[in-house]
Amino acid sequence: MPERDQPERDQAADVRTMAADLPAHGEGAVSVSGWIHRRRRLKAVDFLILRDRTGLIQIVVGDDHQRAVLADLPEESVVRVDGTAVRHEAAPGGIEITEPTITVLSAVSEPVAVELWRPHLDLQLATLLDHADVTLRHPARRAVFTLSAAALAGYRAALTRQGFTEISTPKIVANATESGANVFGIDYFGAEAFLAQSPQFYKQTMVGVFERVFEVGHVFRAEPHDTVRHLAEYTSLDAEMGFIADHRDVMAVATDVVHGMLAAVAAQPESVTAAAVTMPMAPPTFPSIHFSDALGLVGAPPDEPDLAPDHERALGEWGRSEHGSDFVFVYGYPMRKRPFYTHPQPDDPRWSNSFDLLFRGLELVTGGQRLSRHEDYVRAIEARGERPEDYASYLAPFRHGMPPHGGFAFGLERFVARLVGLDNVREATLFPRDLHRLTP
Amino acid sequence: MPERDQPERDQAADVRTMAADLPAHGEGAVSVSGWIHRRRRLKAVDFLILRDRTGLIQIVVGDDHQRAVLADLPEESVVRVDGTAVRHEAAPGGIEITEPTITVLSAVSEPVAVELWRPHLDLQLATLLDHADVTLRHPARRAVFTLSAAALAGYRAALTRQGFTEISTPKIVANATESGANVFGIDYFGAEAFLAQSPQFYKQTMVGVFERVFEVGHVFRAEPHDTVRHLAEYTSLDAEMGFIADHRDVMAVATDVVHGMLAAVAAQPESVTAAAVTMPMAPPTFPSIHFSDALGLVGAPPDEPDLAPDHERALGEWGRSEHGSDFVFVYGYPMRKRPFYTHPQPDDPRWSNSFDLLFRGLELVTGGQRLSRHEDYVRAIEARGERPEDYASYLAPFRHGMPPHGGFAFGLERFVARLVGLDNVREATLFPRDLHRLTP
Repeated sequence: MPERDQPERDQAADVRTMAADLPAHGEGAVSVSGWIHRRRRLKAVDFLILRDRTGLIQIVVGDDHQRAVLADLPEESVVRVDGTAVRHEAAPGGIEITEPTITVLSAVSEPVAVELWRPHLDLQLATLLDHADVTLRHPARRAVFTLSAAALAGYRAALTRQGFTEISTPKIVANATESGANVFGIDYFGAEAFLAQSPQFYKQTMVGVFERVFEVGHVFRAEPHDTVRHLAEYTSLDAEMGFIADHRDVMAVATDVVHGMLAAVAAQPESVTAAAVTMPMAPPTFPSIHFSDALGLVGAPPDEPDLAPDHERALGEWGRSEHGSDFVFVYGYPMRKRPFYTHPQPDDPRWSNSFDLLFRGLELVTGGQRLSRHEDYVRAIEARGERPEDYASYLAPFRHGMPPHGGFAFGLERFVARLVGLDNVREATLFPRDLHRLTP
Repeated sequence: MPERDQPERDQAADVRTMAADLPAHGEGAVSVSGWIHRRRRLKAVDFLILRDRTGLIQIVVGDDHQRAVLADLPEESVVRVDGTAVRHEAAPGGIEITEPTITVLSAVSEPVAVELWRPHLDLQLATLLDHADVTLRHPARRAVFTLSAAALAGYRAALTRQGFTEISTPKIVANATESGANVFGIDYFGAEAFLAQSPQFYKQTMVGVFERVFEVGHVFRAEPHDTVRHLAEYTSLDAEMGFIADHRDVMAVATDVVHGMLAAVAAQPESVTAAAVTMPMAPPTFPSIHFSDALGLVGAPPDEPDLAPDHERALGEWGRSEHGSDFVFVYGYPMRKRPFYTHPQPDDPRWSNSFDLLFRGLELVTGGQRLSRHEDYVRAIEARGERPEDYASYLAPFRHGMPPHGGFAFGLERFVARLVGLDNVREATLFPRDLHRLTP
């Protein structure tokens, strides 16, 4: 075998101690690396607060030469610090580093306009998002996305435990999924194609293969409304399951999934604190109410076709005060307001076997039982004035044996925004896309 | 609280026993549900093989009326069967069901053209893909995607263990990522935008936030080549990490990730068998060879700029025979063949600190150390004859302190195709997209 002399590899990465591991490391020689989070100049010494992915490290800089080095390093410079770890009760983790030697790993060529060491980033939304590369480094912002990742892992774990299989389905599609409106068109090798608004048809098809499937993927809505709740691209958490009796089996799984996500979030206590999250009230079974009863409860006319934001808020209040729950199911929405694949309520086809799950008074999850017989789809599509032939690819599985099934979908960003108490879903999105925003 | 009489809920879903749970269920009354996988008509009885998400169930139908019911139910009909479980050594799981009552849950309105009960689906690729809703139900096809889901879970678990945080970044972007070619354009509210070819810039930005990040997401390539290896849309497994010494730290993580994926696959022994997978040879450390030595090893001229497919195959052979490994790293590729963000080899800038990981003689993973200093990016972009201003959004994090970093990316479908021994990556994709294929 041919052998080549490889250049000496810098071993620094191997001896690096993370902030979180300093208490276990104890006193003695130590090497740490990270970003300069804050510098504080006192008379006799400087304090350097270093930030790594696990936390903050306090470093006392007394030597004049090292103080001069530090004076030239603006916040966010990336450095390695070799020094001596000593116990110090007031320092993060009870350890501070003295007698440091600072080595610059990466300089800052444009001072950061944001003071990341302040407890709160008091910025306009546009500034927060335009400078995401820096503002996301703030511990409170960072924590939002640590919790988002935890919630996602909790979602997948809950469904995997329940026998669901993860799937990955195309985002470039030949037909609009949910409706012809709000869809992005693309030039697909000269043919017309669209970005999928949801994996709806594919997850139903895959019930025929795996019975229970879930998908985490991006969906795309050419959403012309400039609201705090809508994004042009978001992460959709989708699930679909076969062999159900009706929508209540789906609601039971959705409940279990929410519990799994909350448990995963709660397992990140430092991020829960950093993001100032008040954990929601989530009893084992969420209160549920039929749409027509919900209208009565909130004092709306009985022929209202949908719940207004005010109604959802009132139902959220009802859930909290009457049932000690931040989550409320509303089921039985009018058929005419639900997509054509929705299963009607068997004893009264004005209503549907569909539901929304409200989280703190805002729609979080939409789901329900679907039609499962081919002839029902043909009828539903014709009732829309459309031709079943145009849905041939979607309808194929229903000709080939499809069990009674249903499912749900919800937006990860919307869940995180409600959880953290962010007014705008954009604050729960790393790099949001909307009517006016295509960068960063 | 208003209460509504809810219609009686069908309790069948609650009492259903899955195929895999039959041995534990033991003898006695039982209810099972699934697809009619096969019917075999004998003189005195019929055999009905039922398929659910966990396996096959053998049912003996002796009663004349039930035999008549069964005769009218083509394969893939969805039924519930209530009967008596009895021990029978030759049946799957050692249990068969006798004295069945068959209830149709969903009829087949178009007989399935494919015989799913045969051990092998001997179909043309186009037929296999055009009828994916049915062909994916074949146990061997289904197993491919069970293993794909397992590999994905293994990927995420390995990186989570190593302190990586999952991120989700936009697929609609303002600029082409890797190169101006092969990119799908979209009309974004009247503005020009593109589908992301990779999350490269975003995962690098997020190293500034989390140090270690990964993303599982779709990427889009307007790939004009109609080969067995290329898709217009695929699932990219991306990772990026800071505070590395060089590309060898990235290779070590990639090695660990591959081991995690293989372990997750091996934990699905039934699917490994059903998909006829030969588990690859994967020693703790994969053999690695510098690009220039690789050229010598395969007998290529020393000025070749890249490895041809023949060369990759020969290197795969070398890994197997000399090192007992189906995985081989080639590092040090010529700078001129790698993207502009690639870090050069410090002692000889003709070469780069980048690598490919070959799996059974085919490129699986591409990765390496990236440039991390703003001035190096400016120089690299100018050397391409482009203007750094056009990359302002991408370059921002490098002005604000970015540690030495690197990462890798690989296609899930390509990994699964190599693992299972599928010639065409389309066979490892549920609903592939290519030059000619936009449905199903």
